[in-house]
Amino acid sequence: MSRHPLTTLQEDENSVLILDQTKLPLEPVLVRLKSLEDAAEAIRVMRVRGAPLIGATAAYGVALGLAGDSSDARLETVLGTLAETRPTAVNLHWALDRMAAVLRPLSPDVRSLAAWQEARTIADLDRQANAAIGRHGMELLKGTLQGGPTWERPVNVMTHCNAGWLATVAHGTALAPVYAAHGERLPLHVWVSETRPRNQGLLTEWELRQGGVPHTLIADNAAGLLLMQGRVDCIIVGADRIAANGDTANKVGTYLKALAARAHGIPFYVAAPVSTIDFQCPDGEHIPIEERSSAEMGVDAAIAVANPAFDVTPASLVTAFITERGVVSASQLGQLQP
Amino acid sequence: MSRHPLTTLQEDENSVLILDQTKLPLEPVLVRLKSLEDAAEAIRVMRVRGAPLIGATAAYGVALGLAGDSSDARLETVLGTLAETRPTAVNLHWALDRMAAVLRPLSPDVRSLAAWQEARTIADLDRQANAAIGRHGMELLKGTLQGGPTWERPVNVMTHCNAGWLATVAHGTALAPVYAAHGERLPLHVWVSETRPRNQGLLTEWELRQGGVPHTLIADNAAGLLLMQGRVDCIIVGADRIAANGDTANKVGTYLKALAARAHGIPFYVAAPVSTIDFQCPDGEHIPIEERSSAEMGVDAAIAVANPAFDVTPASLVTAFITERGVVSASQLGQLQP
Repeated sequence: MSRHPLTTLQEDENSVLILDQTKLPLEPVLVRLKSLEDAAEAIRVMRVRGAPLIGATAAYGVALGLAGDSSDARLETVLGTLAETRPTAVNLHWALDRMAAVLRPLSPDVRSLAAWQEARTIADLDRQANAAIGRHGMELLKGTLQGGPTWERPVNVMTHCNAGWLATVAHGTALAPVYAAHGERLPLHVWVSETRPRNQGLLTEWELRQGGVPHTLIADNAAGLLLMQGRVDCIIVGADRIAANGDTANKVGTYLKALAARAHGIPFYVAAPVSTIDFQCPDGEHIPIEERSSAEMGVDAAIAVANPAFDVTPASLVTAFITERGVVSASQLGQLQP
Repeated sequence: MSRHPLTTLQEDENSVLILDQTKLPLEPVLVRLKSLEDAAEAIRVMRVRGAPLIGATAAYGVALGLAGDSSDARLETVLGTLAETRPTAVNLHWALDRMAAVLRPLSPDVRSLAAWQEARTIADLDRQANAAIGRHGMELLKGTLQGGPTWERPVNVMTHCNAGWLATVAHGTALAPVYAAHGERLPLHVWVSETRPRNQGLLTEWELRQGGVPHTLIADNAAGLLLMQGRVDCIIVGADRIAANGDTANKVGTYLKALAARAHGIPFYVAAPVSTIDFQCPDGEHIPIEERSSAEMGVDAAIAVANPAFDVTPASLVTAFITERGVVSASQLGQLQP
């Protein structure tokens, strides 16, 4: 293990090592992806998760899938297989579109090398974007409390699900501002929502503990009371897909927190790289919502279960979007179109 | 077991048999309460739960506590011990106040008999009140869909926690209208929220399954999406304490559902007997919110946890209160004062 520091994804001798997030927070286990199927399975069963990390893993999945056969037909098979792993996160398609645009024009004999190179670029871009999100978001956090926070009265940030470094190649999205601010010794405390049914809040708890950031775990149900009691200064969440009008798909339960933030006049921020904005998607009604297995609820199979994995927060409830290109309102998102 | 039909609470030879709800939905286990301590423990650890059932159990707890010693001093000890079991549900205090009013003026030698009699009365009143809540609420359900529901388009009721027969002596509060309507073959479907951290939604699922009422289990986080998608026609919840102005304490998470109902113009009903209204309590800010053990979250003890068991839904979000004396608005609650 000591050879491999804990990162979500890293190249290793023509394969890719990922931190298996289905084993966290119990134990950090690295899994080696050697093939297209390894990568697709890792995304599907959520060994890797978080929109940016899904995108980067898919990019490396293309590189893995071209080993031994880089023909036109194989390339399309590889792209198609990865595109079908999960429906909601748009970064997956963003990454595959980039890979396709680079690889389709090339002759098969140089595709494999180019695929590894482009996957590396996508991963690097994610690192850089998230670092910038951290810097921009930190400025928002610094301005949240009049007179500035103290350790007796820290900035109380609430988040949902996990949009930390585990959800990305590095730094995180929603948690990038938290880590940046913590690095500058800004007094902070994070409310961590359990995030049923998959409990990704426990990943956030684990991350924040490793990073020494003060935090408290709550049931998802407790968010409204804490806001009513004045114990939350802002909410920051990540995103799986942001429609052109700013409607935001994120882990199911996000919308309830956004409604509660609005009811109490608390800012609600969405932190995401520009690659999470789907400029082709006009609004939230056009975002497909993944329905996952009822088994995730952990109850008897005879029980009828509905298990939508995401919900949509209307743009009107989002105070601002924290991107690598700055903090913008919903109406300004169009200006970020590449 | 066959001697004892499944009811939440019944007298049995100078003791009280309760259905141990910490063992549900895995298996129905009856537990015999023989003493004050048995009753207090059953309330504290939630073998019995639900505001009305807590009240009735406390009343029987007084009767059990007076066995062998019905002195003035013992009576006060018994009342005090039971009053301290749980802070939020007001029915507990309502029942103990009734017991005190009846028993304090009596001479010790007749107190024990009178205590059993008054506990019986309190239990009977709960049965009757909930049956009436069922009738009044059923009329609301009948009027929910224009042209009436069909099995292709049933009335979709969402609830939170368990306010069914398990939470009462009989019939339930929030579920009483559902059972009454189901009895009249009104097409219904119930969305059952898991209700973390104690998962009382699984009690509701179990109840509805026994009763043959169509239903679907969801994570608490999914409520907002379902409302946005137009898949919920009304929300009915129970209550642990209703302040004089209509602010309503109920299981944590209720407030988030009320906010979502308002955002989508869906009626949000609170079903509760008049004994749940605390006419002495002006508003929600005066309702004590129980903080329960962090162990309920089921995570490593080293993790910092906040676990408030209730939240407060402002009266402004409650469409109407369904009581045994009819369906009233928040401003009409005062007319119900005995």
